Amino acid sequence: MDNRKLRAGIVGGGRGAFIGSVHRIAAEMDNQADVIAGAMSSDPKNAEESARDWHLARSYASFEDMAKKEKSLTDGIDFVMIATPNHMHYPVIKAFAGQGIHIVCDKPLSFTVEEAEEIGRLVEENKIVFALTHIYTGYPLVREAREMVRGGKIGDVRKVIVEYLQDWLSNPIEKEGQKQAAWRTDPSKSGISCCIGDIGTHGENLLEYITGIRIKSVCADLTTFVSGRPLEDDANILLRLENGGKGLLTCSQIATGEENNLWIRIYGTKASIEWHQQEPNTLTVKYASAPVQVLRTNRPYLTKQALAACRIPCGHPEGYLEGFANIYRGAIADIRAMKDNKPLSKNYPSVHDGIRGMKFVKQCVESHKRGNVWMEC
Amino acid sequence: MDNRKLRAGIVGGGRGAFIGSVHRIAAEMDNQADVIAGAMSSDPKNAEESARDWHLARSYASFEDMAKKEKSLTDGIDFVMIATPNHMHYPVIKAFAGQGIHIVCDKPLSFTVEEAEEIGRLVEENKIVFALTHIYTGYPLVREAREMVRGGKIGDVRKVIVEYLQDWLSNPIEKEGQKQAAWRTDPSKSGISCCIGDIGTHGENLLEYITGIRIKSVCADLTTFVSGRPLEDDANILLRLENGGKGLLTCSQIATGEENNLWIRIYGTKASIEWHQQEPNTLTVKYASAPVQVLRTNRPYLTKQALAACRIPCGHPEGYLEGFANIYRGAIADIRAMKDNKPLSKNYPSVHDGIRGMKFVKQCVESHKRGNVWMEC
Amino acid sequence: MDNRKLRAGIVGGGRGAFIGSVHRIAAEMDNQADVIAGAMSSDPKNAEESARDWHLARSYASFEDMAKKEKSLTDGIDFVMIATPNHMHYPVIKAFAGQGIHIVCDKPLSFTVEEAEEIGRLVEENKIVFALTHIYTGYPLVREAREMVRGGKIGDVRKVIVEYLQDWLSNPIEKEGQKQAAWRTDPSKSGISCCIGDIGTHGENLLEYITGIRIKSVCADLTTFVSGRPLEDDANILLRLENGGKGLLTCSQIATGEENNLWIRIYGTKASIEWHQQEPNTLTVKYASAPVQVLRTNRPYLTKQALAACRIPCGHPEGYLEGFANIYRGAIADIRAMKDNKPLSKNYPSVHDGIRGMKFVKQCVESHKRGNVWMEC
Amino acid sequence: MDNRKLRAGIVGGGRGAFIGSVHRIAAEMDNQADVIAGAMSSDPKNAEESARDWHLARSYASFEDMAKKEKSLTDGIDFVMIATPNHMHYPVIKAFAGQGIHIVCDKPLSFTVEEAEEIGRLVEENKIVFALTHIYTGYPLVREAREMVRGGKIGDVRKVIVEYLQDWLSNPIEKEGQKQAAWRTDPSKSGISCCIGDIGTHGENLLEYITGIRIKSVCADLTTFVSGRPLEDDANILLRLENGGKGLLTCSQIATGEENNLWIRIYGTKASIEWHQQEPNTLTVKYASAPVQVLRTNRPYLTKQALAACRIPCGHPEGYLEGFANIYRGAIADIRAMKDNKPLSKNYPSVHDGIRGMKFVKQCVESHKRGNVWMEC
Repeated sequence: MDNRKLRAGIVGGGRGAFIGSVHRIAAEMDNQADVIAGAMSSDPKNAEESARDWHLARSYASFEDMAKKEKSLTDGIDFVMIATPNHMHYPVIKAFAGQGIHIVCDKPLSFTVEEAEEIGRLVEENKIVFALTHIYTGYPLVREAREMVRGGKIGDVRKVIVEYLQDWLSNPIEKEGQKQAAWRTDPSKSGISCCIGDIGTHGENLLEYITGIRIKSVCADLTTFVSGRPLEDDANILLRLENGGKGLLTCSQIATGEENNLWIRIYGTKASIEWHQQEPNTLTVKYASAPVQVLRTNRPYLTKQALAACRIPCGHPEGYLEGFANIYRGAIADIRAMKDNKPLSKNYPSVHDGIRGMKFVKQCVESHKRGNVWMEC
Repeated sequence: MDNRKLRAGIVGGGRGAFIGSVHRIAAEMDNQADVIAGAMSSDPKNAEESARDWHLARSYASFEDMAKKEKSLTDGIDFVMIATPNHMHYPVIKAFAGQGIHIVCDKPLSFTVEEAEEIGRLVEENKIVFALTHIYTGYPLVREAREMVRGGKIGDVRKVIVEYLQDWLSNPIEKEGQKQAAWRTDPSKSGISCCIGDIGTHGENLLEYITGIRIKSVCADLTTFVSGRPLEDDANILLRLENGGKGLLTCSQIATGEENNLWIRIYGTKASIEWHQQEPNTLTVKYASAPVQVLRTNRPYLTKQALAACRIPCGHPEGYLEGFANIYRGAIADIRAMKDNKPLSKNYPSVHDGIRGMKFVKQCVESHKRGNVWMEC
Repeated sequence: MDNRKLRAGIVGGGRGAFIGSVHRIAAEMDNQADVIAGAMSSDPKNAEESARDWHLARSYASFEDMAKKEKSLTDGIDFVMIATPNHMHYPVIKAFAGQGIHIVCDKPLSFTVEEAEEIGRLVEENKIVFALTHIYTGYPLVREAREMVRGGKIGDVRKVIVEYLQDWLSNPIEKEGQKQAAWRTDPSKSGISCCIGDIGTHGENLLEYITGIRIKSVCADLTTFVSGRPLEDDANILLRLENGGKGLLTCSQIATGEENNLWIRIYGTKASIEWHQQEPNTLTVKYASAPVQVLRTNRPYLTKQALAACRIPCGHPEGYLEGFANIYRGAIADIRAMKDNKPLSKNYPSVHDGIRGMKFVKQCVESHKRGNVWMEC
Repeated sequence: MDNRKLRAGIVGGGRGAFIGSVHRIAAEMDNQADVIAGAMSSDPKNAEESARDWHLARSYASFEDMAKKEKSLTDGIDFVMIATPNHMHYPVIKAFAGQGIHIVCDKPLSFTVEEAEEIGRLVEENKIVFALTHIYTGYPLVREAREMVRGGKIGDVRKVIVEYLQDWLSNPIEKEGQKQAAWRTDPSKSGISCCIGDIGTHGENLLEYITGIRIKSVCADLTTFVSGRPLEDDANILLRLENGGKGLLTCSQIATGEENNLWIRIYGTKASIEWHQQEPNTLTVKYASAPVQVLRTNRPYLTKQALAACRIPCGHPEGYLEGFANIYRGAIADIRAMKDNKPLSKNYPSVHDGIRGMKFVKQCVESHKRGNVWMEC
């Protein structure tokens, strides 16, 4: 294909949503794509106004129309960004995948495990590039951590501690019309889980992404601290890893004073690593008989995989948007590669990661329901 | 009683042990006691040499002789410091309590729950002051945290995360004659648990000390990562609190790169607090709608309970020895009070805390044995 | 004017420069502008290739042509981004200001103080919006700090400590063809100063931006540690403030192990504040008789000025690019305001800040030349 | 000499002083000395009561009597601890040195440089062990830093930044009878300087202790921020080192929010090191092309010099008192060595360091008086 910028469309992300702009900025950051079309809201007025805010060339009232129409245009979109609530992932994916339009979709992948598996088939059959926005895998030092752990630098993994703590749902703000809270705490839109689905899956994905070791089984204790809320807002989960390692995963949306505190510690026989999403440009490596090492974004000693995810000189903080943009960088590269019949890099979370995440959610909820018993993942 | 310095004796703490000197320094720090007698080792030669190192006035080959003899002297010891392995707590306590000699004893309290309860009776019957060295309750900012939480400053406790991570048993050093490791990993000296008994109980005690809320039940997953070791060297424990709160307690002696990383986070409806033993002069308080607050040792805004535990001006770091000395400060004050028939302050961990800790250990081990089921504490 | 996206051009920023992409990403982040034209290098081939990389609609071999041509087009650029070395600021500004094209220019403002003052006149006469990229004033918490200090929250400023430490010029990399290093260490391109001009001015600007207090005089000790380098790579500067406060400003490009460590501490009679560019989402406020307070980006308690500079929910790190984008946000708002004959917000560093910076550089160099004497600023 | 504990006396340190107890705890910590005699105050009643608090065997109303009397006793003191204000160092030293009694004395050494030099002669002539309590050289990681820098691990020293910031004199508390403040701000007791003499000298000593490089000259700007105070409470000092390095030393007693914030950064051609007194168990080493290294107290990789200064296992924080005790450990070892006619270790700050410090104070004050000119040290 020629070297033109790709054309992108968006479904969802209208006024009142923050993630829409995140997708746009991330998709356009490397100057390889322009967002030109959208069905930005199920509410026609919001859709129209949001499209105008974004200076979109084409605005649609329905994502089905958008999929068909864009497919028919010579300058139609190359890929679509899906920024809708969980229950609206599957139908949107179905519509665009059916047209052979590539997809970048928010996590968790779907509403149910069944949908997730069906999505896996759709992606397969339609031969499209599909990226799931497990954004935290886009940070340079997460990629460094992956290289270290998978390269054996910390030895055999014995213990993992994964935390994702927030406080934004400490009170029933869903009853005060907070849009983000409203759908996430609503089983008809969110599914069987609020906290684990929304953030716990990021922890699960990060753990498996870095270590390459699967969670074998979970023993989960879920809690709804805010009365009247139909889904859990906190979970403590014992983990057993397929390699014999043990661990903990705790996630909460009622942890007062916590912002978006995702962090992970992985203890191996040779060393341990620690990474905090809120200070993402630092990776700490601890040894028993040597000084602690602190690695920093874009310093020359990083692996090429990590350096390839850096944009600006060291000491100029790179944040969430840049990490998100690295998911798009990988997806866009593969969209170009597919058009050019070149091999794909697959350097982004896949539909299989999404299926995995949905199973994790299901088994945690099941473990709790059955009285906190071990469930295989 | 006159204002003379108290006379102290020690059992255990001979050459090769580090905790002996810690007891001596802590007991003498405030200039209220001198260590003058000891049965410092079950090995007579070590006992003799250790006593000489310490310039003790009187050295004994057996703690039974010491208890009897000291009782009979006009200038006999006022209290004994017990720094022996777990299995040697009960007999030593029995010997000295029987003589009405006050006791400061290492944790965990005993070898079994049954012994612990018997010790409770001995302390009761003999009307002695008994302090257990859950030293971390001696830090000024732990006392500040206690005042805050019990005073309702953080609201209702919803979630707690307690960690105590070390790496010193990552390898089988007990087979290389490391004295500390040898007895702790030996069921005949340590009891039914290594990691939980040795450090997990500190976490349990710290949690209940600060919050005043009891752990209602535990679901524990124990692991022995070092092959051939008869006791666990790692544990992940789900907690349920009697007030409806939930939590996690994880302890490990194989967490590569961790030194003595005890820390606690307590999330309430109004605020959360966080304290790290390795940086003990800082207490962090987080709010949802206000800036994070960082409290520091010996700054004027602390409560009188915390200020009473400080010795030197702010910014001059106070550490482990000073915290340990605060346990002795409380015990010595009560020994003086008892001699003067004054009310006791009981400002130190008690025999009841010790019984509580032994039950916690037993129920964690039991939970694991039965397949990680919930056990009441 | 209609609500169309603005059209931007760039001079400089071709292949090999990192700042070009920073300007593009920052200018386009809020979806209010597209970069469509450029004279990206004085080397025609590089200019052409760079323009193709960027998918620019129009590429020019000369900035003079660009200025004239764009002015003549109905869809010509609204503003130009200047990302050239110091000696090429004045001529480029002159060309575009002469055409009434708005300008966003890199710092330091110019090659000499005389040029700087002439630029001030050009901006005045041509009634254009002119923004200088003292990017660090774009961070939300720097704006919070400004509100606090100017609002009297820390009382009278007594002492300031400003540091800007890097290590990238620790060795003579300018002799190995490192493009950034080559021009910065070359007096014919950089001017009379390397380190102070390149980074010291950021410190000076940040100090005056936050406090609103001018540096009255400087006593500077400059050093060239890398032999053969014609300009200083380190400076230690005593400061006296117009309000009677005292301070220090140190900047270095040979401070081994430092990345881009700009930080500032301001001590007042009531409190002190501290901000580190490398962890820009944290602002620390210290009191004598109250706990330390830690403010965080996009938490609800911030001032509206700070919140207006935030893009994503708290705990999702915002970095250098977002800060840079806030300079563009302010400039673009004023370009729109000017077109609509509305009052300007001037919420970005001005040409006057640039003149101020150039004088600061001159007086520091002069102070050193005269034997480290005090010079008025 | 036999292996008995040494006998110590104290001059000063009576009720109301905090440093007295610090000396006692530090001297006795290793069980090698007992404090048994004292002239604890110039006020007889305070002297008597303080001695009783301390359970001293012998209390004196005058230090002259004490020196003579103790010398005449078969069980007289082996050394004296001097904890009096600056103006009372010389006469006390003269009295005890004249009796051949060893001395541990607070810093700064004396009231004037002339006194300091005279003290040097007294120590020489009387062949006594003399230790000055520049306590910060007693921290294990400061000794590690010394080994690293002197061993060439960071290459040639180019830049140093030394800070010692406090806030306790932010207000005129000397007028409210705060004893510590009263004498330090009184030229008749403190000498020509308050802030530099009290804390600046610690910074100067620490810098020369770690690097082994002398400060060649200073250019100092002193300020008295609290009106009516006869001596400076803040100073900013440019440094030039004898090896060609440059630096800054800033000290303040009015830096709101600072407790006892002594820290030092030393930048070499190969690496830089950073140590903070308020978190003394951490030493940071930064490299240009390798990860940052964080060294920790009592970890096995430290040098034997650092390990010899550690008392308890890693992760059990060691603080100010333990650092202070390391000065005594060195002094006591040399007192024993001298009695046994063995070579001295001299592992503690000497009278020569004290003379050096007094000259530093004098030249800083002189530099300021002459209009902030360079003065040789």
